[in-house]
Amino acid sequence: MTSTPSRPLSVTVWNEGRHEQTDAEVIALYPDGIHGAIAAGITDNLGDAVRVRTAQLDDPEHGLSEEVLADTDVLTWWGHKAHGEVSDEVVDRVHRHVLSGMGLVVLHSGHWSTIFRRLLGTTCTLSWRSEHDRELVWTVDPTHPVAQGVPNPIVIPRQEMYGEFFDIPTPDELVFVSGFTGGEVFRSGCAFHRGHGKIFYFSPGDQEFPVYHQKEIRRVISNAVQFVAPAGNRVLPSLNHRDLDWFLTPELTQP
Amino acid sequence: MTSTPSRPLSVTVWNEGRHEQTDAEVIALYPDGIHGAIAAGITDNLGDAVRVRTAQLDDPEHGLSEEVLADTDVLTWWGHKAHGEVSDEVVDRVHRHVLSGMGLVVLHSGHWSTIFRRLLGTTCTLSWRSEHDRELVWTVDPTHPVAQGVPNPIVIPRQEMYGEFFDIPTPDELVFVSGFTGGEVFRSGCAFHRGHGKIFYFSPGDQEFPVYHQKEIRRVISNAVQFVAPAGNRVLPSLNHRDLDWFLTPELTQP
Amino acid sequence: MTSTPSRPLSVTVWNEGRHEQTDAEVIALYPDGIHGAIAAGITDNLGDAVRVRTAQLDDPEHGLSEEVLADTDVLTWWGHKAHGEVSDEVVDRVHRHVLSGMGLVVLHSGHWSTIFRRLLGTTCTLSWRSEHDRELVWTVDPTHPVAQGVPNPIVIPRQEMYGEFFDIPTPDELVFVSGFTGGEVFRSGCAFHRGHGKIFYFSPGDQEFPVYHQKEIRRVISNAVQFVAPAGNRVLPSLNHRDLDWFLTPELTQP
Amino acid sequence: MTSTPSRPLSVTVWNEGRHEQTDAEVIALYPDGIHGAIAAGITDNLGDAVRVRTAQLDDPEHGLSEEVLADTDVLTWWGHKAHGEVSDEVVDRVHRHVLSGMGLVVLHSGHWSTIFRRLLGTTCTLSWRSEHDRELVWTVDPTHPVAQGVPNPIVIPRQEMYGEFFDIPTPDELVFVSGFTGGEVFRSGCAFHRGHGKIFYFSPGDQEFPVYHQKEIRRVISNAVQFVAPAGNRVLPSLNHRDLDWFLTPELTQP
Repeated sequence: MTSTPSRPLSVTVWNEGRHEQTDAEVIALYPDGIHGAIAAGITDNLGDAVRVRTAQLDDPEHGLSEEVLADTDVLTWWGHKAHGEVSDEVVDRVHRHVLSGMGLVVLHSGHWSTIFRRLLGTTCTLSWRSEHDRELVWTVDPTHPVAQGVPNPIVIPRQEMYGEFFDIPTPDELVFVSGFTGGEVFRSGCAFHRGHGKIFYFSPGDQEFPVYHQKEIRRVISNAVQFVAPAGNRVLPSLNHRDLDWFLTPELTQP
Repeated sequence: MTSTPSRPLSVTVWNEGRHEQTDAEVIALYPDGIHGAIAAGITDNLGDAVRVRTAQLDDPEHGLSEEVLADTDVLTWWGHKAHGEVSDEVVDRVHRHVLSGMGLVVLHSGHWSTIFRRLLGTTCTLSWRSEHDRELVWTVDPTHPVAQGVPNPIVIPRQEMYGEFFDIPTPDELVFVSGFTGGEVFRSGCAFHRGHGKIFYFSPGDQEFPVYHQKEIRRVISNAVQFVAPAGNRVLPSLNHRDLDWFLTPELTQP
Repeated sequence: MTSTPSRPLSVTVWNEGRHEQTDAEVIALYPDGIHGAIAAGITDNLGDAVRVRTAQLDDPEHGLSEEVLADTDVLTWWGHKAHGEVSDEVVDRVHRHVLSGMGLVVLHSGHWSTIFRRLLGTTCTLSWRSEHDRELVWTVDPTHPVAQGVPNPIVIPRQEMYGEFFDIPTPDELVFVSGFTGGEVFRSGCAFHRGHGKIFYFSPGDQEFPVYHQKEIRRVISNAVQFVAPAGNRVLPSLNHRDLDWFLTPELTQP
Repeated sequence: MTSTPSRPLSVTVWNEGRHEQTDAEVIALYPDGIHGAIAAGITDNLGDAVRVRTAQLDDPEHGLSEEVLADTDVLTWWGHKAHGEVSDEVVDRVHRHVLSGMGLVVLHSGHWSTIFRRLLGTTCTLSWRSEHDRELVWTVDPTHPVAQGVPNPIVIPRQEMYGEFFDIPTPDELVFVSGFTGGEVFRSGCAFHRGHGKIFYFSPGDQEFPVYHQKEIRRVISNAVQFVAPAGNRVLPSLNHRDLDWFLTPELTQP
């Protein structure tokens, strides 16, 4: 029961893009940038069902102008060492678009981004170690759309460790829990609904490891893109004064 | 972004079918039976995307043989005054199929059916009154697939009142809350995940009111059918002894 | 099975305090201010188990200095028309204290306060009408501590209507759902966990109606104060680098 | 802010009690039976706040007569190899008491007991291995009452592995997630609300390992006993016909 969307989803893959400017190891692992690998994974999996563009921190307006966001169904976010350089104006804009219905997929160190913390309201802190742990990604919700088509567990041979306590609100849907060689566990795949928008956080992926070339990881990200795609019209929830019996006027009840 | 499934969903619409044998009012409202109205609503909305059959309590094995269930993606359930006549064997069978992945849509007085109570573990009791309240069905989760394409609220001019406390586990997803003229409120649209299966409970609908002819209600039921459709293979979760490193054998990690 | 805390909870009742400066009706209803009525309700119910102080917008630092918050176990918040006058510095401070473990009870029009929106990440908008609806507050989670000792439903004879869609994240615990004479429904009692802190939102209460003099409402607010009281030490979650086997050092595993 | 209940909680510690009849190793580890160790842990932690009795499968009515249950605030359950010998009548009785408000703490292999499956509606299956894994029990909800006073993580030097997929409904509150040396993860501390009752499942503990002698584990079990203690009166939710305006009759609105 696969399905073919009637028009392609517009996906914008955002990348901080700084490691790629200076770190030889990262350049070697990701010659097309981390955004390039993520975009390729989405295209490989979803084909004609998506139209993918990329944007980076050093683009004008970080590549996230009002025009771009208005034309984006789903935004994916990867950042690490320059969260503080994303302008308040762009964070506000992305925030507004998510609450209006744009989907957001936050990846790995994006947990610490301003937009993720703005949407969730918590510190989004965690424990970490980068010493070549192996990560096993376990599905705890096998009926969830994001978990379809991947083994349980997914084995990631070498990966940075992210461990609990992960200071996020209780996810609306907990899909994956990871375990690491060192013994830590982590809620690694989490869905949140905010306003008219959906958010999926997926922790695997690091600039030092080839995680975004792994086919199971690319499948999860592609599933997540489809999962957070807008369900209805793009509109910001608003304060509404309502007279008695307003709901008998059909135009007022349209979502 | 509508989509076309690659093969039709197989839907079985189950009805107790007893009121239709004796109550002139019900026969007048539902000349094709309550199952007929529900089936027509699903077909009208989903067309070639579904293949719909009906089954009733008085059919052999209540129309729910192993063969029928094995060939059913989604079962809808309407019952009222004969819950106790559904055999344990059939309840066990439906239970097993739901936990294995078959979707289940429980309607109105089906809240008190043995299968619903078996799956939820609670009494599933509530308060009620049948005195021509008006029901307003409010969407509290506008991104949910079951709430797409319907006004907020849906107005049901005359309807039986179902009120809190509704003794169900906290729904995994609360989609609709209804209010009644008399002042009561009710969690009227609730999703539950059990095993590999999804369940949606939707309370509007009664043998004494033409609710299943109302187009918004038919749309919700059709949305629910699509929502609970199986995501993956049909298999019952099982107890598994696992040796160390079993997950390095790929066949063992297939869901 | 009532219990006696070993030391009193320190409660700070915060009020915007502007209606009380100019609106004769509000002054008549709340001669000691809205904060006075709320504080009295808490003291009446919890007695020696609490130590209650009040603070207002026009106090220096809005009465919410670092010293006051560090000495506050639970903060209650009432604001309406001057949300924009609360300084960013104080909002940041309250935010940090909540994530560190301080309890927060947000009342009525406080849904639109900067601190509530900061903690939840959404617009926190809703529908409203102030035309003397009756509100019925229904318990949907009878085991919840905040619902103890009050009738189901609580009847509030005259009250402002707050209706869905209420743009909040799905509550971690949904305790009350209200219905209004006009037909609207509202998730009126909601618990959220953020960081090490708990938040309870309770919608009944308005400057134009004597809701905070009603004994059932005072009981709910008092229950909420006890519910959000800190469970453990006051500490902000933080990012932690962890060496392999760090958890074998007992001091590092203390919460 | 510890507290002293005004009368002791009545706790019944139930044990299958079969391993203790034949397995020399179990007898050596648990000379007073598994129930004896669990009861001692609760008494050590809660002292005069509890009154603890024990009951076993081989007692008349399994030690769980109507009289015993009516006088039990919290029941703890340990079973392993004789789940099928618990009579339907006693399972029905415990089920009814839990839905009426009695607390239930299900331990370790009790996940597979008839009463747990009856309350949850799923298969409650999981993966397992008994080869001396180390278990780390991580707190993912640091504000939860059951997690108070224990390190994060709790280290259990040797323990049976329980791994995902654990076929339970999504817990109403997920408190602990465990990781095992072999790489598996498990939702090891889960709260469920059913009817008027609360249930806590805690997986650590096995007949082959001295887990119930470990002080952190005893503290968690004691916390769980307090957490699931009834909040209000003991009454089974029921179907209620309600006339218009019934809620204006105060006696009808008492919970």
